[in-house]
Amino acid sequence: MITRMSTLFLRTLREDPAEAEVPSHRLLVRAGYVRRVAPGIYSWLPLGLRVLRNIERAVREEMDAIGAQEIHLPALLPKEPYEATGRWTEYGPNMFRLKDRKNGDYLLGPTHEELFAQTVKGEYNSYRDFPVILYQIQTKYRDEERPRAGILRGREFVMKDSYSFDLDDEQLLRSYQLHRQAYVRLFDRLELDYTVVSATSGAMGGSASEEFLAECATGEDTFVRSSESDYAANVEAVTTPAPAEGRIEDHPPAEIHHTPDTPTIETLVEFLDSESEQRTFTAADTLKNVLVKTRAPGTEEWELLAVGVPGDREVDMKRLEAALEPLEVALLDEADFEANPFLVKGYVGPLALRDNGVRYLVDPRVVRGTAWATGADKPDHHVVDLVCGRDFTPDGTIEAAEVREGDPSPDGRGVLRSARGIEIGHIFQLGRKYTDAVSLDALGQDGKPKRVTMGSYGVGVSRLVAAIAEQHNDELGLVWPREVAPADVHVVIAGKDESLATEAERISTELDGAGVRVILDDRNVSPGVKFADAELVGVPTILVVGKGLANGVVEVKDRASGERTEISTDRIVGHLVGLLHG
Amino acid sequence: MITRMSTLFLRTLREDPAEAEVPSHRLLVRAGYVRRVAPGIYSWLPLGLRVLRNIERAVREEMDAIGAQEIHLPALLPKEPYEATGRWTEYGPNMFRLKDRKNGDYLLGPTHEELFAQTVKGEYNSYRDFPVILYQIQTKYRDEERPRAGILRGREFVMKDSYSFDLDDEQLLRSYQLHRQAYVRLFDRLELDYTVVSATSGAMGGSASEEFLAECATGEDTFVRSSESDYAANVEAVTTPAPAEGRIEDHPPAEIHHTPDTPTIETLVEFLDSESEQRTFTAADTLKNVLVKTRAPGTEEWELLAVGVPGDREVDMKRLEAALEPLEVALLDEADFEANPFLVKGYVGPLALRDNGVRYLVDPRVVRGTAWATGADKPDHHVVDLVCGRDFTPDGTIEAAEVREGDPSPDGRGVLRSARGIEIGHIFQLGRKYTDAVSLDALGQDGKPKRVTMGSYGVGVSRLVAAIAEQHNDELGLVWPREVAPADVHVVIAGKDESLATEAERISTELDGAGVRVILDDRNVSPGVKFADAELVGVPTILVVGKGLANGVVEVKDRASGERTEISTDRIVGHLVGLLHG
Repeated sequence: MITRMSTLFLRTLREDPAEAEVPSHRLLVRAGYVRRVAPGIYSWLPLGLRVLRNIERAVREEMDAIGAQEIHLPALLPKEPYEATGRWTEYGPNMFRLKDRKNGDYLLGPTHEELFAQTVKGEYNSYRDFPVILYQIQTKYRDEERPRAGILRGREFVMKDSYSFDLDDEQLLRSYQLHRQAYVRLFDRLELDYTVVSATSGAMGGSASEEFLAECATGEDTFVRSSESDYAANVEAVTTPAPAEGRIEDHPPAEIHHTPDTPTIETLVEFLDSESEQRTFTAADTLKNVLVKTRAPGTEEWELLAVGVPGDREVDMKRLEAALEPLEVALLDEADFEANPFLVKGYVGPLALRDNGVRYLVDPRVVRGTAWATGADKPDHHVVDLVCGRDFTPDGTIEAAEVREGDPSPDGRGVLRSARGIEIGHIFQLGRKYTDAVSLDALGQDGKPKRVTMGSYGVGVSRLVAAIAEQHNDELGLVWPREVAPADVHVVIAGKDESLATEAERISTELDGAGVRVILDDRNVSPGVKFADAELVGVPTILVVGKGLANGVVEVKDRASGERTEISTDRIVGHLVGLLHG
Repeated sequence: MITRMSTLFLRTLREDPAEAEVPSHRLLVRAGYVRRVAPGIYSWLPLGLRVLRNIERAVREEMDAIGAQEIHLPALLPKEPYEATGRWTEYGPNMFRLKDRKNGDYLLGPTHEELFAQTVKGEYNSYRDFPVILYQIQTKYRDEERPRAGILRGREFVMKDSYSFDLDDEQLLRSYQLHRQAYVRLFDRLELDYTVVSATSGAMGGSASEEFLAECATGEDTFVRSSESDYAANVEAVTTPAPAEGRIEDHPPAEIHHTPDTPTIETLVEFLDSESEQRTFTAADTLKNVLVKTRAPGTEEWELLAVGVPGDREVDMKRLEAALEPLEVALLDEADFEANPFLVKGYVGPLALRDNGVRYLVDPRVVRGTAWATGADKPDHHVVDLVCGRDFTPDGTIEAAEVREGDPSPDGRGVLRSARGIEIGHIFQLGRKYTDAVSLDALGQDGKPKRVTMGSYGVGVSRLVAAIAEQHNDELGLVWPREVAPADVHVVIAGKDESLATEAERISTELDGAGVRVILDDRNVSPGVKFADAELVGVPTILVVGKGLANGVVEVKDRASGERTEISTDRIVGHLVGLLHG
């Protein structure tokens, strides 16, 4: 079917929408692909819906290719399964909750681990049934605090979510790798420039996890990658290489110094430096002990936790929280300090922590045999040459210190550089959190039940429309890869002469018959308006039927390169069909 | 891609689910098409989803064929547009409402008139832009009081809803007819046995409207149709033929009778009959005046309304409410009678109504020149020979009396018979209720704005899965029409001999290559189990690769007719491909 601009439900805008912050949002609104209904809630107009459906088709094909089976679960869900896993509470205000007419609690599904586990339990129970991968392409809901950038971070959005169910870790790893490969094929096919980064598992529970980030200066996700290798990771997932252990006997004994007016690292370093003529102190020689409190979700009691990091770095709360998951983390308030008088603000040291049984985790740089200047647990006093493994022994290490540009890459090659991206895919080895919640077992060959292990894999389908637009545009408008474009050829009738319209109709009809998706601009407006709209809409090939027709030629313009070619009218259909298959 | 039963996410059930009331529900659950998650909320398993998608495709093709354009609006909607039309309140407990994290009011869309009107207003403003028809296929939400019969009446369901926008009534009628024709083509194509019935417009506002009902003994909708013509209507839409007017001078003067202990029509008729020797009274000669109160939506004040119907019929509240829409209707309570002492319970007559300014609407049978026995406005008294047009003049007529089997058909041909069906489609000429709410105008050629008129058209897409299943099943299971079936051919390997599996694989692969959708039962279970599952699943053609293979033949069974044919293995692929195109 030929799409005629004269009747297409499309009005392009000359002006950028006031609220648009990023190019994809600006262009998708201007070109009439989407319209805002409420914050983070958008309508898809005809061209936008086509792009969305094209992406859905590509996703479906890649999922089917790894043997995943499509099903469709409800978006409106009862509370109970989410209560069983604790997520009814954990999701906090990000989840839309509602009551039905009988006062029953429901939610709008933000993700469906619980329901898929329950669904598999409903059908399967033998080791012969596994492995199985199920997926759905579905409208999902998250009550984002800051819906942003049009469809890039919406409150109603389309996701492909899939879930693998396996008998053991080895099978799970295989399902995970299948998804990884499917995602690579998918994002390559969608002509995205993306990076696969190591990730923590966020609120999902479980262990190994990677994110697919479409690189983009306006992206919300910050990640780092090596200047020399293909290492890339979420800031939360960066690990700190530990230095070699030092020799304890190389250090003088620890010594407490009176250090008046040194509540900050800066003042301390300045003081120690001025005090000693032989040694130079830097912030990296000091050990800063930050106090927080943690508790398991659903419990009441907070527990103190001390985190020791080199004084030249801040504690990155996001990294700290990710490292402690699923524990809740909070800063101490005045009441906490009053209740624990051994915590001397600004002068907390490892010894008081040890003596008072406070759990103490340190940065991986704090290894045995390293010496530190740190708090001496009384006001205006620090201890110097406190040696790890001699004078204090931490309870373990933690990745809580900030990551900086120039830090060595964890793989030992190059240094870290930071970059920004849009999360377009995420793969997780979940483990048994959700199968435990519903007791999903497979009866083994030995007749014994075995708990099934699970993976969870997501693609932001509607977000991909924005991510692709973000990477494929120029000053004139959108520039769609053919795979997702709303049409293959945009035919412009560039003039009022009847013969132009007649020839454009003929070519369009023949193209349509050959399976080429055609937009025909048959409107009664100036060629200038038509050209501008064609560039804005961003179909890969623009065909201009204009003055050249008198000489038997029409003009083909490649939207991406801007290259123009004159082709004779008797060869044009074959030429354009060829472009599609070439 | 061949669907293998060995890995398909499908477990059929031997037993009927306890909660299933109707055949479609029983079979769709047993055959593993759908699973219940909560009341009226279902999951679609792989085969169910295929049928649903097949129906969606057919719907889409028929809509595209009438020039409708597909868009997609959100399901999560802000309150404001629904408040502007009053439906935020009118929908009552049938609408799911919720609040977002900022305490904003939202709803889950039950239907989208408001949003489509708003969307069109966002893009269009000139007479040149119209007419336009837009549609979507979308998940919708209604908090039904009694979700029922599986996916037949769910709380989350899929609908195709479309909306036409026209400049005048003539254009609207054309859009309406286009939809009517598209629906006829669609339901014919889906091999449904259905009736198009005249309908009132329900809660939608507006005038002309028809429903498409799939006939079915377990259907929820009752309708009537003529024994001799193609007249069919919702009970609410049946009109009563008015008798010829009588001659006023033929009647004696009205006379008040003392009629002790006659609070009911029955006792009254008995009394009058025994009182007079010349005349015979029947209930149809009495006029029963029923009092209700009405008010406009959103207003506070109730107003009295009297409804006069022949005493041999009850007032049908559904018909009354439909006739009075959009007014709210309620019965009187004791306080109302106390506040209006002229209303003498059991003896209300037209004269007190007139004297006290109560609006009085009568059944169409109450025409000028008819005489009635009715209340005389005091206890134990009735008036006889009260003549319409002489002694009282109603304010108009109303269709409120019950409709009965055997009543004359409104088209004058035959009598009415009642039947039951499932509503699968509904078409409305809405008019300007929603375009008024958003002031949707088209600037005319004369430079003057003109209010656009609207139509609304729905198909219950997920309900169609159930409706088709309801009409296409037998004692063995489902019997899908090919258009919607989850596959074309169900290949059964009926035996353990390796050669059977090899030949079944060969045939399946060749069929798959030829575009035939194949389910291959390659499980390690008995042929009996495979046959039973094949019948239950209901694919149109079952191919048995069994004993006959030794003689070079396989068996083709037509699921619907049960007919079996032996075909040689070298002709089988061609034969089955032929079935698809035949």
